[in-house]
Amino acid sequence: MAERIRDIGEFGAIARINEVIKRDGVASGAVTLAIGDDTASFLPRPGREILATCDSIVEGRHYLPGHTSPFDLGRRAVTVNISDIGAMGGHPLYALISLGLKQDALMEDIEEMYRGFLAELNPFGASIIGGNLTSSETMFIDITLLGEVEEGKGVRRSGAHPGDAILVTGFPGQAAAGLQLLLRAGDTPGLAAHPLVRVYQTPTHRAKAGGAVGKTGRATAMIDTSDGFLGDLGHICEESHVGAELQAGSVPVSDELRDAASLLGQDPHDFFFGASDDYELIITCSPADSEEIRTTVRQCCDAPVARVGRITTGGGIVLLKDDGARQVLTASSWDHFK
Amino acid sequence: MAERIRDIGEFGAIARINEVIKRDGVASGAVTLAIGDDTASFLPRPGREILATCDSIVEGRHYLPGHTSPFDLGRRAVTVNISDIGAMGGHPLYALISLGLKQDALMEDIEEMYRGFLAELNPFGASIIGGNLTSSETMFIDITLLGEVEEGKGVRRSGAHPGDAILVTGFPGQAAAGLQLLLRAGDTPGLAAHPLVRVYQTPTHRAKAGGAVGKTGRATAMIDTSDGFLGDLGHICEESHVGAELQAGSVPVSDELRDAASLLGQDPHDFFFGASDDYELIITCSPADSEEIRTTVRQCCDAPVARVGRITTGGGIVLLKDDGARQVLTASSWDHFK
Repeated sequence: MAERIRDIGEFGAIARINEVIKRDGVASGAVTLAIGDDTASFLPRPGREILATCDSIVEGRHYLPGHTSPFDLGRRAVTVNISDIGAMGGHPLYALISLGLKQDALMEDIEEMYRGFLAELNPFGASIIGGNLTSSETMFIDITLLGEVEEGKGVRRSGAHPGDAILVTGFPGQAAAGLQLLLRAGDTPGLAAHPLVRVYQTPTHRAKAGGAVGKTGRATAMIDTSDGFLGDLGHICEESHVGAELQAGSVPVSDELRDAASLLGQDPHDFFFGASDDYELIITCSPADSEEIRTTVRQCCDAPVARVGRITTGGGIVLLKDDGARQVLTASSWDHFK
Repeated sequence: MAERIRDIGEFGAIARINEVIKRDGVASGAVTLAIGDDTASFLPRPGREILATCDSIVEGRHYLPGHTSPFDLGRRAVTVNISDIGAMGGHPLYALISLGLKQDALMEDIEEMYRGFLAELNPFGASIIGGNLTSSETMFIDITLLGEVEEGKGVRRSGAHPGDAILVTGFPGQAAAGLQLLLRAGDTPGLAAHPLVRVYQTPTHRAKAGGAVGKTGRATAMIDTSDGFLGDLGHICEESHVGAELQAGSVPVSDELRDAASLLGQDPHDFFFGASDDYELIITCSPADSEEIRTTVRQCCDAPVARVGRITTGGGIVLLKDDGARQVLTASSWDHFK
């Protein structure tokens, strides 16, 4: 019979999780104490700032039970955090993973989830150094990820200047389209096989590119698109006290997004500008540095980098349409409580 | 009408929480970036290790809705983490607070919870540098607390030697008795006024004492009693590959615990040895250092420090009764899934 966490208890489950981490994870020499004491500990490197971020994945809110495998769920939960470290120009180091699990959770699912965490952490030499298990009626994964960046080299949201070019990696909006396809797949079974469903299920971060961009010292601001392109560009504008002008003709739309939008009877730009968690990067920089940054990103990942507009002195975010018309855009970011 | 989080949304709530943190919290000069970007960042101090721990408080599991005020809930959630940093001999620095909240959560309750977090963090000059808000059917608070300890000076569970004295602060078991009184107060209203109910509701950590004990360099092992005295002494024995011999006559029992046990028709030792989350410290040290450590603890807090036994070469944990009989004890730690 399938083994459940209530069969082996909290301490039994911790022992099993530790086996997975020891077998499939990487160990860092800077970790002076890993799982198994009151706290974990590590020695920070001189000349580095520590970066810290946390994010939760909650059942029914961030994923649909039965639609996402435990492995993919683990990957998603840690990807959203890795993306945040990368968007600062940093390098992920250590994860603390807190799980709220149902009493009847399957041990093999929990171990698969950890394999998902490790699949994303291992490429960075990053490790799981701590965590917590508790029972909860609603399942949740809460991850704190620590990283490092060279002192003073973190790329903030607040440094964009009027005249800066606005770059974006990949195709924001694809995740939202994938989710819509998945939600409608019950009525139209063929939709579940659309490539954007897989894009939604297994989000990709650009942390390696973000780290490389940070090292160039050329980016004035950077953020990941976890709320949607417009919402996140809005965060840069707000923190930098600037506005933005976007060229409709420069908005990157993939063939898959065009196809999905057509199936869903919507304009692909609605997905690009709407709420969507794609974990792409928005980067601002002096126009003179734009090509160097585009090249840097392309050396790290196979994502295209589009130059979609420029930072202005104010006046919100404006879209210049192909016919010359100007449209003021309003962000409709994903809000968990609205 | 009372304002609920769904009325002002995630971003409105974050703004309000930031106001509470700025007004009532402390700011650290080592924080290079606080709430409001992709990550927080700070500059670690040279010669220090970073300590990292996380713990969750889940509705219905760790607290009873309606029985605990939001302020007390906030204090409890951060106290359990502060206790872990203290049990390493460290000093708390930075908290990342992740909340899973119901759509109809009251904003004033959320702000009160933050005042509870700050009430515990402020005495250490520790600050909230990050967090996450998400909606969840089951409310949860998940906190990652970062701290520091002088390099190589962290007090682990694994350093206890045969012959070491076993010390314990305060009165483990009081929280379990307080919880039992609270659970039975529905039938017997007078029980809710018992002082141990308040002890259960507002747990006290010994982190200041733990930090001072760490600095003496005299403790061979240390742990906080979050699972219960026996369970946590068991963790030291397991990690140090030793056993323990306890003197029944030395077990610290407060007048309040004796009274509560009598009301509940139980032996006070059942509470001391059973599952209970009191956040006291178990410390082992050479018998020659025992008085110095007791003095150090008493200079930090008004808790008594009892010497309850000694570490042995093995053979589990044995209780020497007043009549000379030897009883092998088995830990019944709190297990979230059993």
